[in-house]
Amino acid sequence: MTGPEVRKAEPAVAVLLAAGKGTRICTKSRGPKPIARVLGLSLAERVVCTFLKDLGVRRFVVVVGHEAEIVKSHFRDIALRRGATVKFVEPDDWRRGNGASALSARGRTGETPFYLSMTDHLFAPEIGRVLARHAPAEGQVCLAVDKDKSGVFDPEDATRVKVDGDRIREIAKDLEDWDAADTGVLLCSEALFDGLERAAARGMHGLCDGLRELAREGRAIAVDVTGHDWLDVDTPEAVREAERRVMSQQGRKISDGPVARYLNRPVSRWLTRYLVRTAVTPNQISIASWLLACVAAALFVTGGYPALAAGGVVAQLASIVDGCDGEVARLRREQSDFGGWFDAILDRYADAFLLFGLTWHEFAATGTQMSLVIGVAAIIGAFVHSYTADKYDGMMTRKLRGAPYFRPGRDVRTFVIFLGALLNGPLLALAVIAVMTNVDVVRRIILCAREEKA
Amino acid sequence: MTGPEVRKAEPAVAVLLAAGKGTRICTKSRGPKPIARVLGLSLAERVVCTFLKDLGVRRFVVVVGHEAEIVKSHFRDIALRRGATVKFVEPDDWRRGNGASALSARGRTGETPFYLSMTDHLFAPEIGRVLARHAPAEGQVCLAVDKDKSGVFDPEDATRVKVDGDRIREIAKDLEDWDAADTGVLLCSEALFDGLERAAARGMHGLCDGLRELAREGRAIAVDVTGHDWLDVDTPEAVREAERRVMSQQGRKISDGPVARYLNRPVSRWLTRYLVRTAVTPNQISIASWLLACVAAALFVTGGYPALAAGGVVAQLASIVDGCDGEVARLRREQSDFGGWFDAILDRYADAFLLFGLTWHEFAATGTQMSLVIGVAAIIGAFVHSYTADKYDGMMTRKLRGAPYFRPGRDVRTFVIFLGALLNGPLLALAVIAVMTNVDVVRRIILCAREEKA
Repeated sequence: MTGPEVRKAEPAVAVLLAAGKGTRICTKSRGPKPIARVLGLSLAERVVCTFLKDLGVRRFVVVVGHEAEIVKSHFRDIALRRGATVKFVEPDDWRRGNGASALSARGRTGETPFYLSMTDHLFAPEIGRVLARHAPAEGQVCLAVDKDKSGVFDPEDATRVKVDGDRIREIAKDLEDWDAADTGVLLCSEALFDGLERAAARGMHGLCDGLRELAREGRAIAVDVTGHDWLDVDTPEAVREAERRVMSQQGRKISDGPVARYLNRPVSRWLTRYLVRTAVTPNQISIASWLLACVAAALFVTGGYPALAAGGVVAQLASIVDGCDGEVARLRREQSDFGGWFDAILDRYADAFLLFGLTWHEFAATGTQMSLVIGVAAIIGAFVHSYTADKYDGMMTRKLRGAPYFRPGRDVRTFVIFLGALLNGPLLALAVIAVMTNVDVVRRIILCAREEKA
Repeated sequence: MTGPEVRKAEPAVAVLLAAGKGTRICTKSRGPKPIARVLGLSLAERVVCTFLKDLGVRRFVVVVGHEAEIVKSHFRDIALRRGATVKFVEPDDWRRGNGASALSARGRTGETPFYLSMTDHLFAPEIGRVLARHAPAEGQVCLAVDKDKSGVFDPEDATRVKVDGDRIREIAKDLEDWDAADTGVLLCSEALFDGLERAAARGMHGLCDGLRELAREGRAIAVDVTGHDWLDVDTPEAVREAERRVMSQQGRKISDGPVARYLNRPVSRWLTRYLVRTAVTPNQISIASWLLACVAAALFVTGGYPALAAGGVVAQLASIVDGCDGEVARLRREQSDFGGWFDAILDRYADAFLLFGLTWHEFAATGTQMSLVIGVAAIIGAFVHSYTADKYDGMMTRKLRGAPYFRPGRDVRTFVIFLGALLNGPLLALAVIAVMTNVDVVRRIILCAREEKA
């Protein structure tokens, strides 16, 4: 997965089968439609985003049938918002099977090879990349298969594949002797349509019937994608499983510090599961977090211990909410450079307000000039620590290849503020932050200087 | 110059003629050797850096003769420091002419095409790029020529070229009827050596004699590089001209604000002309500038007006010296990511110390809490202004394509501190900085948000 990527093909088109009520190969229709939502985005939009954002596919041929108008209008909306091109095919005979649906795309794909996927279906982008690296020769079709039979979510419902080397020998739901499960993602040449036509002539209209025809001539290739995630979303249990997997995959951030990882993230994820279903935008969440920090700073300034403790709790809450903007953006596949930058600027102001609030509180109480010096040293340290983070994190990511390292970042600083306010020790909290951040900046400079020389 | 670059060739080797005392085509030897220094770097090192850093050439074949051991040891030192590979050729007959020198490189270039250049010679990297885009066909040699005859630095001494379309018709020093000047940079196939050999058989040993042989058969191509800078460094006047050109080309920085452009740069360049000839490193200059800022902040804190004014002057001096680190690094062709990052970190600390020094001075004098608030607002604003600079500058550079725009950056802030200290108005200076920086941050956010939507 980490080696240089050599793609044989750069497929630019994907055919999405969205005609049935449940369109898995050889599976009887049941369960939710492509517009069913998984954490704020429909299955259809998640599949489109995987092709569009991860695999560089901009053109889609969508085969519709059941509730065609609703499905079409939903895809038109996705295409408009995401900047994709969508053409629709409405075959009369879609009820015969997903093979009939797929066959109706003949002549619409424009160029080969093209991806083919179900729409009530989630898969890791790596499956598409592996297919592109093993692009089908002319006259061949490549099907991504998973050899980890025990890892299939709903093994009873899986389409089973018997392989021989890289060739598919047999494909059907009821195989006794099988090697792999059909993941439902293909990279096809025009040959697919020949196979489907021949199967149709025999009265068989499943996608796997067409593949079986090609398999007889050794033209159906099994591409092993074992270890990469895929899920056929047919049942309510499968929707819940999909939400669990999407959450665990797209809610992560490598640079999370220890407080973020063990305290903030569990809470922010819980919040995010609700926020992602609302109309709230990530930038609005960033602003809400910033406003909470302003309230905390105001509580620090007003003086008195109870206000100080309350401010500490609100500051920690702001830090937790600050995790939600990125999570919601990633879950909705709406990450943007601007969003991340805007959030970072607000964070810098929030940091400074909190630290100045604590400084003010301490100075008002004691009147010592030392409290001003320590407070400003903490403000400077927090700033320069963030200022140096990009270059340092880039280096550490490269060197450590994603392994965790202690990073006294914003999560840790805010937690120290929280503790200092709660335990009525603002000066100690400021001193800890001043030392921790400035010492770490010096450490970063030394490490980067060493790296430069190496 | 700005269009997409299509190079026909990626030459990986350069032959450098460093045998004579002055090795220009058809020119009598005189003047300084290749190790003569132009602003801290020898001509040889500048030519090597142009090939290595701008044109991606890592292998050099250096022809030596006059004072061979000194020249070889100098090139070995360059190769070691810069990470290049150098092979030497020492022909017995180098005194016959630079054609004899060039001919001795036969069989040493390894692959064609290869660059050929004089060593007492400076040229803009774009000349090499234009040659690479017009790479010579087999059996041909490409010579970069300049059709702006009146712009040639020493027209009396130039080798003259008569062209016919893209072919060289005649090349010699004494042509009456000529179209262009020979720039002394070539991109050659092995054909060069055939031409040189034939000329040698006739008893002619100049590089232009060999080119004339090829020109007779239409195999010498003139590649027009008019408008790009080149200079044959034969005389003390030419050395001074070279220093002037190198200074004006490599001492610039696009993101300079108005104070940097009109006040700091003229002074820092004057300083840099001396510093670049010393052993002082750019990082040492960064530290010196930071220490000056610390002294200024200490003067602010000690209280009293004379100390305040002195601090202002030292702060402005620190800002000027801060321009020298980058200038020296660029002039020595030693720019590094680490150096820029290290300088930026020290600048952030210096900014904060200066502003906190002013704040302390004001608070000690008046005791008003408002001075603390304004001072911290200035510290925060200065930080976030720098924090947002990269993304914003990137956008503005893309949008404005290098056109100047008002940028109230570090140069402007330090100048306001200087004026405020000099005129005994620290609170006003802090207020101006607090408003200017924070308002500009909001403006940047709005502009970038608009850009994001577009």
